[in-house]
Amino acid sequence: MKPTSKIIPLKNTEITGGFWADKQKLNREVTIHSVYDRFAETGRFEAFKLNWKEGEPNKPHIFWDSDVAKWLESAAYIIAKTPDPELEKIIDETVDLIDKNRWDDGYFNICYTLFEPEDRFTARYNHELYCAGHLMEAAVAYYYATGKDKFLKIMCDYADMIEKAFVTEKWAEFDSPGHEEIELALVKLYRATGEKRYLELSKYFVDVRGAEEDSYTQAHKPVREQDEAVGHSVRAVYLYSSMADLAAEYGDETLFNAADTLFDSMAKKMYITGGLGQTCVGEAFLGDYDLPETSSYCETCADIGYVLFAQRMSAVKPDRKYDDAAELALYNGFLCGLSLDGKGFFYDNSIEVDLIGINNPHDNRHRPFYPITQRLEVFSCSCCPPNVTRLIANIGEFACTENDGTLWLHHFMSGEFKGEGKAIRVETLYPENGKTEITCSGNFTLALRLPSWCRSYTLSGGKNATLKEDGFIYVDVTDGDVVEYTLDMPVRFVQANPKVRQCCGRVAVQRGPVVYCAEGVDNPLPLKGLYVDPKNGATLIEAPEYGVSAIELDGYIRPESDELYYDYDESFTPQKIKLIPYYAYANRGETDMLIWLTRK
Amino acid sequence: MKPTSKIIPLKNTEITGGFWADKQKLNREVTIHSVYDRFAETGRFEAFKLNWKEGEPNKPHIFWDSDVAKWLESAAYIIAKTPDPELEKIIDETVDLIDKNRWDDGYFNICYTLFEPEDRFTARYNHELYCAGHLMEAAVAYYYATGKDKFLKIMCDYADMIEKAFVTEKWAEFDSPGHEEIELALVKLYRATGEKRYLELSKYFVDVRGAEEDSYTQAHKPVREQDEAVGHSVRAVYLYSSMADLAAEYGDETLFNAADTLFDSMAKKMYITGGLGQTCVGEAFLGDYDLPETSSYCETCADIGYVLFAQRMSAVKPDRKYDDAAELALYNGFLCGLSLDGKGFFYDNSIEVDLIGINNPHDNRHRPFYPITQRLEVFSCSCCPPNVTRLIANIGEFACTENDGTLWLHHFMSGEFKGEGKAIRVETLYPENGKTEITCSGNFTLALRLPSWCRSYTLSGGKNATLKEDGFIYVDVTDGDVVEYTLDMPVRFVQANPKVRQCCGRVAVQRGPVVYCAEGVDNPLPLKGLYVDPKNGATLIEAPEYGVSAIELDGYIRPESDELYYDYDESFTPQKIKLIPYYAYANRGETDMLIWLTRK
Repeated sequence: MKPTSKIIPLKNTEITGGFWADKQKLNREVTIHSVYDRFAETGRFEAFKLNWKEGEPNKPHIFWDSDVAKWLESAAYIIAKTPDPELEKIIDETVDLIDKNRWDDGYFNICYTLFEPEDRFTARYNHELYCAGHLMEAAVAYYYATGKDKFLKIMCDYADMIEKAFVTEKWAEFDSPGHEEIELALVKLYRATGEKRYLELSKYFVDVRGAEEDSYTQAHKPVREQDEAVGHSVRAVYLYSSMADLAAEYGDETLFNAADTLFDSMAKKMYITGGLGQTCVGEAFLGDYDLPETSSYCETCADIGYVLFAQRMSAVKPDRKYDDAAELALYNGFLCGLSLDGKGFFYDNSIEVDLIGINNPHDNRHRPFYPITQRLEVFSCSCCPPNVTRLIANIGEFACTENDGTLWLHHFMSGEFKGEGKAIRVETLYPENGKTEITCSGNFTLALRLPSWCRSYTLSGGKNATLKEDGFIYVDVTDGDVVEYTLDMPVRFVQANPKVRQCCGRVAVQRGPVVYCAEGVDNPLPLKGLYVDPKNGATLIEAPEYGVSAIELDGYIRPESDELYYDYDESFTPQKIKLIPYYAYANRGETDMLIWLTRK
Repeated sequence: MKPTSKIIPLKNTEITGGFWADKQKLNREVTIHSVYDRFAETGRFEAFKLNWKEGEPNKPHIFWDSDVAKWLESAAYIIAKTPDPELEKIIDETVDLIDKNRWDDGYFNICYTLFEPEDRFTARYNHELYCAGHLMEAAVAYYYATGKDKFLKIMCDYADMIEKAFVTEKWAEFDSPGHEEIELALVKLYRATGEKRYLELSKYFVDVRGAEEDSYTQAHKPVREQDEAVGHSVRAVYLYSSMADLAAEYGDETLFNAADTLFDSMAKKMYITGGLGQTCVGEAFLGDYDLPETSSYCETCADIGYVLFAQRMSAVKPDRKYDDAAELALYNGFLCGLSLDGKGFFYDNSIEVDLIGINNPHDNRHRPFYPITQRLEVFSCSCCPPNVTRLIANIGEFACTENDGTLWLHHFMSGEFKGEGKAIRVETLYPENGKTEITCSGNFTLALRLPSWCRSYTLSGGKNATLKEDGFIYVDVTDGDVVEYTLDMPVRFVQANPKVRQCCGRVAVQRGPVVYCAEGVDNPLPLKGLYVDPKNGATLIEAPEYGVSAIELDGYIRPESDELYYDYDESFTPQKIKLIPYYAYANRGETDMLIWLTRK
């Protein structure tokens, strides 16, 4: 099996306007600095000095190497497009500390070096390889951004040391990491250096899985036999991403098919927001079509991993099913993780906020899970914030893939994307507007995704436009062609599969890829008492603060009553219902929130 | 304020057929023996010997005196109607043990005597007075049943001793009991003996409340200032029952009005089954209109206390609001507590059973409350089983109240009810059938409750039938008159107040006072995927095993789909929906159960 296409990398992309340019500006001007400040305040950067002493505040945590690593990677992506000496200085200083404090054998880990130097690679669950992987990703990003290779070489030394510990000398006391991440990082390290051993090491970590009887970390079966997404959702999507990478590198169709099966499995476990992880217990998957609202986890990192996985799959074998899922996650579950002011984050993303329920008394035995209702600037385990910054800074890399004759536009965003011997300039207000104008350089076939939510579209420019089974419209273009592609983007009322017992009798509202919700601050309570008739249609309301329009529905409420229970009648009172994008909820104080509205 | 009527006591009633005769037969022939066997096996009767030693099995528990006391009271009610030397022997032997092992000062308590003799009446939460109260109720019942007064005298000694400890000598270290019960028991003791001090002691325990700042035990405010039902639901309804008793005895209108306000408060917190206690956390009330299905407690004992409270209120001031609520609790929340074979009990009664949700992984931090799905024969805290047996054995006492000129029929059951100078013989198949035939002896006014759920009725016999504001139809009858009263009893679709966010878009099905539910064993899953159109009507299906008919609805399901989310459409597939009485659920193995069905 030969991969159909390859990603057009960040260096050959430029986001030039529209929705994502705004997000990148906020990321560059606010978020990256805010996350840095919180990390500095909590001692995360200082920890790289490895001089923390018992009794001091800010005791380093086993995740901290990775928290900072993702910040470094984010800063590298930002620098790659907008030089920033201040950010570069922070990276260089941190790299110097890593260099100074790493072991002679190449090993680097803050907590193990400080607290348990004798115990390296003895505890599968302690995130050493997870931290190493994120440092490798940061090193690769910084190398691509600046050409400086110090960090990259440090990480090569580390990878060499890991190869010895796990493969050559085999003194490590476990085989596969308890939290996946290094697998996809080693593929990046291989691609940046050409050193095949790193690819082999990644393959080793993926292939060795199966002996641990631990479904929580996806180590219960050999990966090629895994056919259901189970366990910790972030771990899962990181593993699956590396499976897609290795399938591409080795032309391993069996591995690709296993990854595809796991992708399809997640399509029965995904919240309408693209959120993954139906239970807070272990931040994990539940069974098919079981999508409880009170236990939902939907970690921001899980949606980031979902986007990474889908990107890799749709490069190997372009298919809108991957991109549609990624887009749903991107514009909903992922974006919800960041506040509109660019400073606050959700770790887990609620599907519903019911303040009365949240404030009811619960004891330790009987507490349903209620995620926080307002975003925070930092968490004790703060994996999500720097994961948000790196995806936004690197978003251009998710737009296009190419091969010799074809360029695929997977995601609609204004920018310039340069392939080999071909390029496109994209202008669009997506997702506020379904119109995209693509100016082509070179003679090639342009493949435009037709999202599965789209019922009609228009296309002009180019020749021989053909919609294929993979959900892409293939258009032959010649140099200078301008293709106008307009997706009809009405407000849609969406139902869930009847097996989803939590959504029976309810509808959600979507426009394009954006899922909407009702907030208590805009609507009478209880929000479940707002009744929607899909036949009534909807009105768009300008809402520049959100980046896309808000929506007003002609809905209903039931008349008030003094009784608690009484004979059913058909009386409904008209009530305007205001909806905002799900990703924009919780930006106006604590209030109820509901996606799945009651159908009249 | 003078009470309008008084209860026609058990001795002047005879259940002669129909629904409750069947329940009493099962109670007499199966349940009372099964509960005895389980209590004997678990050492509860043996414990009255006070010879338990450390290291032996079956260590006595602070509730056990009351568990056995309620069994004794149940057996006394049974004996009162159906002499049974075997039951009488058990009671006498237990009374002998109490006599032998009580203290010289009259005190009796298994655990305090065995384990903490120095600590009597020092711990408000330790149920001493609760146990004492139940023993008093048993003694009164046994005295009425047999005329034997040994038990009664023992309990008078105990009451005298309690009066000293709390009122005269005041050495007890708390003022009001942490679990109410003795208040209503002392009123019974007063009525059986004529000793006013017992009534005064009850009044003391009720009036003293307010200083403890403990809303959980209803001691946060003086009772006359309490205006919302809060805290532990069983405790609450026991207290409120005694408030009604004392209001009647003292003509205390302020106390009656406070009790009435608390009754109305519960009318905003009651599940459609009459169930009380919206949260398992503390088996307690939540706020108005907050009726979660996953945390519901609805303890069987709470519904029993609710029936006791309503009975007392509707004697003081007959009003169908009390009887309607009691009837709802009786035929739903209460009866659900007992299996059809008469051996199994629910302690808490689920409003919904969702097996997928129940079987999802939960850890200690994140476990929503899931009650048991199948009835058990005994519990470690086994308050409910002997509470069920005593209410069924004593059910005749709930039918009628009277005053000089009027006899009120509060609840419809076949039987003979003798007032002073007047009597009625009732024949009915209620609640299967709305027709009741009342044969009258004497000249008086017969007051017949018109349940608030009834939309039309016919009445013949007697004269001057007048429906009054209290919801009773007053008919003048003369000796020998036969009144035929037929309540139209169609299947009704019921909605909840729009403030109940858990019930939006859903309807329940009721016929007469009986609430119906869908079980997974009869219907396709998920049960929330069954759609009901109230316009379609319903068909009754004979179901003698339940005592009332089952119901079949012409409902709908949504067509199957391969997709998880897709555009809303109006397609529904016809689907028969089978409903059984809620009280009969969980008699055919573990399966899903749903009361609130999704409206089409």
